[in-house]
Amino acid sequence: MKVKQPDIGASCTAFAPASVTNLSCGFDVLGLAMEYPGDEVRLTVATEKGVRIKNIMNNSGSIPLNPEENCAGFPVCRLYELYGLEYGIEISIVKHMGIGSGLGSSAASAVAAVTAFDALFKTDLSLTEKLEFAKMGEAIAAGDSVHIDNIAASMYGGIVLVRDADSLDIIPLDFPATLWCVVLYPRITLRTEEMRNILPETVPLRKAVIQWGNLAAFIAGLHQHDMSIVKKAMHDEIIEPVRKTYIPNFTEAKQIAEKKGAIGTAISGSGPSIASLAESKAHAQAIHDAWTDRFNADGKKGFIYSSVINRRGAYVKDMYAE
Amino acid sequence: MKVKQPDIGASCTAFAPASVTNLSCGFDVLGLAMEYPGDEVRLTVATEKGVRIKNIMNNSGSIPLNPEENCAGFPVCRLYELYGLEYGIEISIVKHMGIGSGLGSSAASAVAAVTAFDALFKTDLSLTEKLEFAKMGEAIAAGDSVHIDNIAASMYGGIVLVRDADSLDIIPLDFPATLWCVVLYPRITLRTEEMRNILPETVPLRKAVIQWGNLAAFIAGLHQHDMSIVKKAMHDEIIEPVRKTYIPNFTEAKQIAEKKGAIGTAISGSGPSIASLAESKAHAQAIHDAWTDRFNADGKKGFIYSSVINRRGAYVKDMYAE
Repeated sequence: MKVKQPDIGASCTAFAPASVTNLSCGFDVLGLAMEYPGDEVRLTVATEKGVRIKNIMNNSGSIPLNPEENCAGFPVCRLYELYGLEYGIEISIVKHMGIGSGLGSSAASAVAAVTAFDALFKTDLSLTEKLEFAKMGEAIAAGDSVHIDNIAASMYGGIVLVRDADSLDIIPLDFPATLWCVVLYPRITLRTEEMRNILPETVPLRKAVIQWGNLAAFIAGLHQHDMSIVKKAMHDEIIEPVRKTYIPNFTEAKQIAEKKGAIGTAISGSGPSIASLAESKAHAQAIHDAWTDRFNADGKKGFIYSSVINRRGAYVKDMYAE
Repeated sequence: MKVKQPDIGASCTAFAPASVTNLSCGFDVLGLAMEYPGDEVRLTVATEKGVRIKNIMNNSGSIPLNPEENCAGFPVCRLYELYGLEYGIEISIVKHMGIGSGLGSSAASAVAAVTAFDALFKTDLSLTEKLEFAKMGEAIAAGDSVHIDNIAASMYGGIVLVRDADSLDIIPLDFPATLWCVVLYPRITLRTEEMRNILPETVPLRKAVIQWGNLAAFIAGLHQHDMSIVKKAMHDEIIEPVRKTYIPNFTEAKQIAEKKGAIGTAISGSGPSIASLAESKAHAQAIHDAWTDRFNADGKKGFIYSSVINRRGAYVKDMYAE
């Protein structure tokens, strides 16, 4: 495949948002996108052939600079090969989330990289194709346990259902425009792979039925814009009881959010971040403030983010080209 | 509680429809109502105190005439006590479905009985209260494994989600007006309890995730009126593989329906009936005809029913009172 290549020095910066997955009853199948934080990836066309990572801002130190080992770099390398580019590509990454935060940091970098590539080289990839390349980037970070819930939410925006990860079958869900999400990130790191290993391999059928009844109600409540249904549905019989002991302040944070009118509170991804759904900006602000007072009064123990659900997904933030 | 009692000889006949539950990916949580078949229950006010079953039409022989052991009689007995009625009640039942058909026969009788009682004595019960009494009737038939999916579908009509059976939390789902269901009832009997006992007590988490991803997609597809999503979602990883060997002609019936454009085909309840969803009357007719040709050409091997999804649920068919 050939594309018309932009001039040396042309660049494109794409933003891909943080994503909150699982949402209590939707283990491995649900994800939503925040407005912020998010990662930014800039690709610049360079004279010297090959893909290079020029710099990573806010790198906690553990992110590899070798593009073949980097979740933004890897899909760019594959696209670079696929399109047989004649120039080089330099990658700059601005990280706004910690690695292992449970907010889909690696997914956001991968999605932003693919989004920037597609725009800069006008490759006109479909959403599914972009997903496929971003998934390769996520695989670099996640190892054996590649899931596409974070990637799909970050790419599509909104709230998405991953019906089938292998065939990249993503279903964007309907939900009220007033829905907000508040995230408490306690600044510790949990490795996704370890948080998977603590899960049981089998579950009682009885519990699985409770879980899928709740997930089904969650979807129906979202589509019917009836948050009283979603509230009852946000209950996790299987994953949360096992993982919550690894999440600092989980039970207390959940209780505080509940008092402030949260629809529900869940572990974000495999943690350590905690996410609450709120039915309005005012509710979100109340949760945000209460969490700040209790867990981050000095502003040093972590980060708290709140935003309306992001319907845009990844987007091109800046384009410098002919 | 007291109600104004109608005159001796006053009567009310209620109809409650057959129901198809599970619908492949929604084991124990999904149910839909057919337009027909269904059971009819008539209650007549009599001089002699007490509740009596006067007759059962189309009784296959196994339905007890003692009201305390009968799924229509039992809830009437409880309501009779609750309201301290001074007259008697005579019950006539017309069965239009076989016991153990997988079409919610006992549920339909219980729901029709409660519906008739509520109308005849103007007790103005809420849907949830009616559900509670009908559940008592179902318990008479089902023993230890009482589920409310059949009752809920037969009472409410439409397609319902049972989020939580204990708290009778039922969520009516949105779906296209053109949706039909075709049922093949092979005239053999399977005992619900036995069909439960063959199920595994635990399931791999991996398979449970596939199942709830499909169920979530089923609900989203219904609400979005996108049958291509529902079609992909109608896949059962857990229950169908175990039960299908007990269902005569299941695999062939499924293949035939698929060729005729079915959205999906599943075991109805715990069988032996087989149900196909079709996106139009024409598709339903094509499946109906193909199944008739193959499985019931002589009209003796069973029954095939097709109807649009019944949105009305149980209703009063005839009222003879002041």
